[in-house]
Amino acid sequence: MFEAPRGTRDFPPWEMNKRRYVEEKIRDTFKIYGYREIQTPTFEHLQVFTLKSGDAIIDEIYSFKDKGGRDLALRPELTAPVVRFYVEKLQMEPKPLKLFYIGNCFRYDRPQKGRYREFTQAGCELIGVDTPEAIAELIALAYNLLRNIGLKNINLHIGNLTILSFLFRKLRISEGDKKEVIPLIDKEKFDELYIFMQNVGLSADEIEWFLDILKTDDISRIPISDEIEEEIERLREIFRFLKDIYSIDCKMKLSIVRGLDYYKDLVFEIEAPILGAEKQLCGGGIYELIPLFGGRETPSVGFAIGFDRAILAAESEGYKFPTVYIDYYIIPVTHSLLSESIKIAQILRNRGLLVDVDLMRRGIGKALKYAASINAKHAIFVGPDEYEKDAVTIRDMFTGEQKLISIEGLKNL
Amino acid sequence: MFEAPRGTRDFPPWEMNKRRYVEEKIRDTFKIYGYREIQTPTFEHLQVFTLKSGDAIIDEIYSFKDKGGRDLALRPELTAPVVRFYVEKLQMEPKPLKLFYIGNCFRYDRPQKGRYREFTQAGCELIGVDTPEAIAELIALAYNLLRNIGLKNINLHIGNLTILSFLFRKLRISEGDKKEVIPLIDKEKFDELYIFMQNVGLSADEIEWFLDILKTDDISRIPISDEIEEEIERLREIFRFLKDIYSIDCKMKLSIVRGLDYYKDLVFEIEAPILGAEKQLCGGGIYELIPLFGGRETPSVGFAIGFDRAILAAESEGYKFPTVYIDYYIIPVTHSLLSESIKIAQILRNRGLLVDVDLMRRGIGKALKYAASINAKHAIFVGPDEYEKDAVTIRDMFTGEQKLISIEGLKNL
Repeated sequence: MFEAPRGTRDFPPWEMNKRRYVEEKIRDTFKIYGYREIQTPTFEHLQVFTLKSGDAIIDEIYSFKDKGGRDLALRPELTAPVVRFYVEKLQMEPKPLKLFYIGNCFRYDRPQKGRYREFTQAGCELIGVDTPEAIAELIALAYNLLRNIGLKNINLHIGNLTILSFLFRKLRISEGDKKEVIPLIDKEKFDELYIFMQNVGLSADEIEWFLDILKTDDISRIPISDEIEEEIERLREIFRFLKDIYSIDCKMKLSIVRGLDYYKDLVFEIEAPILGAEKQLCGGGIYELIPLFGGRETPSVGFAIGFDRAILAAESEGYKFPTVYIDYYIIPVTHSLLSESIKIAQILRNRGLLVDVDLMRRGIGKALKYAASINAKHAIFVGPDEYEKDAVTIRDMFTGEQKLISIEGLKNL
Repeated sequence: MFEAPRGTRDFPPWEMNKRRYVEEKIRDTFKIYGYREIQTPTFEHLQVFTLKSGDAIIDEIYSFKDKGGRDLALRPELTAPVVRFYVEKLQMEPKPLKLFYIGNCFRYDRPQKGRYREFTQAGCELIGVDTPEAIAELIALAYNLLRNIGLKNINLHIGNLTILSFLFRKLRISEGDKKEVIPLIDKEKFDELYIFMQNVGLSADEIEWFLDILKTDDISRIPISDEIEEEIERLREIFRFLKDIYSIDCKMKLSIVRGLDYYKDLVFEIEAPILGAEKQLCGGGIYELIPLFGGRETPSVGFAIGFDRAILAAESEGYKFPTVYIDYYIIPVTHSLLSESIKIAQILRNRGLLVDVDLMRRGIGKALKYAASINAKHAIFVGPDEYEKDAVTIRDMFTGEQKLISIEGLKNL
């Protein structure tokens, strides 16, 4: 017997219903905010990913040579392919470009709860604008998107790499030391961070001052300085938009570094506390990738949502995804009424209803059991006595109630 | 600059709109017939495909080793993965199982018009039943599916491998010769077939008799014989269902062999003549794959539709896919009214409308030009004089007509 490859999943109908429902909600929300969908290939030239993330990424992805000797890789994320697409084909489109996508990605990762080797990501890129209102709208979209798929308890945090860099400069932290410091900040290992900063010669006062700012969610605690005045004013405006217009509660969190080199200025994350250690659902920010791919410099900001984890979070919170029903299951009481039964099915199908017919020539008991197993709302019995009077019996599968209805009446059910 | 890998495509918004529209139509049609969606991984163990199609398929697919040394392959088609899924996890589900799927597949093929290295396939499998009514319903579904995505001129042909084998036996064609004959039949190279049959010693009468049956679309021309009586009666019943109940015109075509070893009995194809040489849109039939994957024998029948080719055919026939519009584009006349403009956007978005706001602080002329470029139906100007009176100006982007409307009135637009 064969199995699905390690870390991948098969989705039966009851899982797919959920996934398509969430996908539709995500798509609808993006569209409501004026975003338009795009799609890129499942694999790219390997360089598309090493250019963005460095050669180290090769260890974490599915890369292979095609029969023409090209180095290809299954996409581990969607921002690099979308930027490649933009630079190759969409640079001349009117700005801003509001692009979204939902697609599967692949990582050669250790499979664990909520982490798979094939997973789905939804995300967007806003290209050509970085006004505070544009960024606030994008963050509000990310937040509302998660709300719209049923999540109740989510937290939005906004960080800023320009301010973080300013703090590093103030403390005279070298480029080399930064490489050590940033992962500690990212993982909020503040004790280790304290020791490291002591070791590089910072005073207890300096370290306390730095950790205080890192831990505060109050934007007014950031020291005023000409160097970052403009950036702070912009950040304040974004916070104002989010709170006053979008009614979204958000907190500053300078420890967000997103561990990626191509972000600059603003970064943000949305988490679902119910998921514990794996709580991050969404991450994004302003990034600089377009020139790296050979495009003309233009502002760009985007985010990605972990589709699988978002579903997991909504379900953990107790959200019930809608069940999918079959509207009518049609049972010919005698085989001689099979053609008539199919005709009735076609009348209902032509009206867009979800209809099934017994195709196995079963007895009524077995047919009803099957109807229940596929979530049929109603069964229709096509029997000789009723059919002679142009009628059929319709049964409510939940209450068991039955009534006679004319075939003409089926057309207006 | 980087390009998408050879034979793959990037889909800009105006292409994605079409694709999602067609996907939705396909999904709706499957559901109307009681089918439920499933999904399998993008790659499988290589053996899943070699088991079904033989080792020769390795030359035509993207296969690679993962970092654990496993032989994997990007799926070239979806029937084998679905059968693998069924045998692994769904054998205990109530029968019949009506499963459908829409997914991307990969072939290392020479790229040409309508043929890509990454392409989309939609299809279904009906497992556990092979009554004539079940098969007729499945064929009707395939036909109506193509009609529902806008195709007008399509032809349905039904073949039968049991009858074809009977004819081979009658002519005493050896197993070895069959391997030569079948590809000639499949490609309808009747002249070459004639010569080949002469060379193996068949008389002109025998060959004419065989070719006549192969070319006829009239089921009554098939010679009556005890051996195939039952099969012909079944075929007649399927034809009757299709014609009388589903009102679908279909023709017999014994030259359909589908070039695949795992089909048996009935096979069918649907083509769009407008596409010329690449006219085949859909192929399917009764197949025997489940035992090969270690499952308990049970009837199974399915079909696959070439998604890309079906779109190409509908467009070639002149079908116009619906344009996607933005409902409202909101333009703050002065920057001081930006917050108010976003509030208005949110009122409309909360009602599910597709809304965009000028995020670039542009002049009205430029903003209107942009609104036209993104297919906005209406522009809303938020200007100081009107806003003071709790009103805005709404402009019809097609006629240029403008009128004043109260902000309260926007809630019922």
